[in-house]
Amino acid sequence: MGSDDAPIAEVEGSLLAAEEFGAKILLVGREEILRRELSRHFPATGQIEIVHAEDVVTMHDNTSAAIRTKKDTSIRVAAEQVLSGRAAGMVSAGNTGAVMATAVKVMGRIPGAKRPAVAQIFPTDRGGRTLLLDVGANVDCTPTMLVQFAAMGEVYTRVLFGCERPRIGLLSIGEEDHKGNDLTSKASNLFKQKPFNFVGNVEGRDLFTGNVDVIVCDGFVGNVALKVSEGLVSTIKTMLIQSLEATVMRQIGYGLAKGAFDEFKKRVDYEEYGGAPLLGVKGGVIICHGRSTRQAIKNAVRVAIDFETGGITRKIQENLVDGLENIGGKSSTAVSSRSTTSATKR
Amino acid sequence: MGSDDAPIAEVEGSLLAAEEFGAKILLVGREEILRRELSRHFPATGQIEIVHAEDVVTMHDNTSAAIRTKKDTSIRVAAEQVLSGRAAGMVSAGNTGAVMATAVKVMGRIPGAKRPAVAQIFPTDRGGRTLLLDVGANVDCTPTMLVQFAAMGEVYTRVLFGCERPRIGLLSIGEEDHKGNDLTSKASNLFKQKPFNFVGNVEGRDLFTGNVDVIVCDGFVGNVALKVSEGLVSTIKTMLIQSLEATVMRQIGYGLAKGAFDEFKKRVDYEEYGGAPLLGVKGGVIICHGRSTRQAIKNAVRVAIDFETGGITRKIQENLVDGLENIGGKSSTAVSSRSTTSATKR
Repeated sequence: MGSDDAPIAEVEGSLLAAEEFGAKILLVGREEILRRELSRHFPATGQIEIVHAEDVVTMHDNTSAAIRTKKDTSIRVAAEQVLSGRAAGMVSAGNTGAVMATAVKVMGRIPGAKRPAVAQIFPTDRGGRTLLLDVGANVDCTPTMLVQFAAMGEVYTRVLFGCERPRIGLLSIGEEDHKGNDLTSKASNLFKQKPFNFVGNVEGRDLFTGNVDVIVCDGFVGNVALKVSEGLVSTIKTMLIQSLEATVMRQIGYGLAKGAFDEFKKRVDYEEYGGAPLLGVKGGVIICHGRSTRQAIKNAVRVAIDFETGGITRKIQENLVDGLENIGGKSSTAVSSRSTTSATKR
Repeated sequence: MGSDDAPIAEVEGSLLAAEEFGAKILLVGREEILRRELSRHFPATGQIEIVHAEDVVTMHDNTSAAIRTKKDTSIRVAAEQVLSGRAAGMVSAGNTGAVMATAVKVMGRIPGAKRPAVAQIFPTDRGGRTLLLDVGANVDCTPTMLVQFAAMGEVYTRVLFGCERPRIGLLSIGEEDHKGNDLTSKASNLFKQKPFNFVGNVEGRDLFTGNVDVIVCDGFVGNVALKVSEGLVSTIKTMLIQSLEATVMRQIGYGLAKGAFDEFKKRVDYEEYGGAPLLGVKGGVIICHGRSTRQAIKNAVRVAIDFETGGITRKIQENLVDGLENIGGKSSTAVSSRSTTSATKR
């Protein structure tokens, strides 16, 4: 029920995912609305099932108030499907804060994870990908939280992108250690004590250079970075079209080179990346943009499937509790021997 | 002496500015190096004069240590030319932190300005411009500092862009008041008590939408936003060229539409905007990118000229001390009557 276009994008995206990946989809929300939208599509498929939820959290709701007062929201019911094991993961294009808070409340945090984080994939100009986290879940972070984000992002890139030993960078305003704020300076010291492949401070431009695989920052900075990127991609496309349509000669050139623009659009469009995973809760939660298209929803379902198939939740737990000498803060007798093994593997 | 290409970009940019704007330029730095570079150009012009400075602050210097130990730096000597009135303003592509600290030390802050800020101009897709500040000078800001940044940015856009009543936005992670961090929440309350045309929270994408004229944020967030934009523009250009050169048909199309790409490049390239003004010190200081070309240096000289001609320093002082009911914190008997006038004018 969450996207700007709900439930059209969700229903059509689910139908595409069912067809393309053979996925079985539970559509969670107001039954009559979902049934009406589904009935517009032919042929009906047995792979889509509706699970009724009475309430909806809107983008304008105060998140904590909505979670307190609305008991039967589609986000909550979806999270309960994951908790009970009926669903392998959930996808939502709704209110990010509500998805995150509800997922934590219903599914619970992974042992050792202080705070879940939303991770966003950025395309690099060498054809690779860089993962940035957190992009919006936690506005005021501690150094330990940033280290945990790295531990979670490391697992994600290792499993889903096949990076053997992901390079971890700390988003700051200069590569030198002394450039940054209080948080980055303390986090930098902490990173050096952990068995990461830590490359030090990186800058905003490194989201696209491919010099690093995982970049960590607090959720305020990450969200600004994400929205600056989205805004700029959209602006650049507008500007380019304006210039290309200005003369007949250019229009002809544009026509001949159209394949290049389609390819380019595909490379920079966020919908191709299929939503941002919420890392740190017990179960796959994929958060999509409010302006998601059916294509974006379909790709988010693919990410949810890969998340479950790759055993991301279990591997994050291992990395947080054992792999990083227990950076979550809990004691464990198995720490030292296992952390050695894990560090060697990375 | 500051750019990656120093002193080539500086010398060639100065020659261009002397020719195009009739500006007289004092080139500050090691005399033998500057003289050698100047001698490579013909015809020599009487509009360029060399002012010797023995030391250079590099990008890798620890800023505060360099300022303490290096006494005769080109940045310092340049600032002294402005202080003494020999120069109307200064342009540097050197270490931003050193330029800022030295300018404050030598020229002094404008009365009422707690901290100077670096302002960056972004192109919007409607052909307009948005000013973002601070983009790197102050990593940990108070709400009052953000309000002062707005007061300074307002003057700049009014005088240089001809905005009559600039719309001021606060960079956050959602348009609703409750979305943001501790700093934005306190700053938002403070803004509402001041006579600004305050539009509330804006998001990263609003740098390019033209919905707002001035956006304020702390220098850490602003610097990340700036570098994400620079990185993305460069990546997008690379990706587009890769796609356009992939087939012969596309190459022909590219050839026909080449004017569109040149125009597009001009619209998104930062060098066209001629550097970022440092607002809040007593004199014009224009900070350029380390990777500045001669074109960027030339345009920065133009901005320095406009800065002086427009009386920006004096107008910022009026806006800080009188116009905003003395937000600088000092008391003044003239506050209430003049603030009414000033608010009416805006």
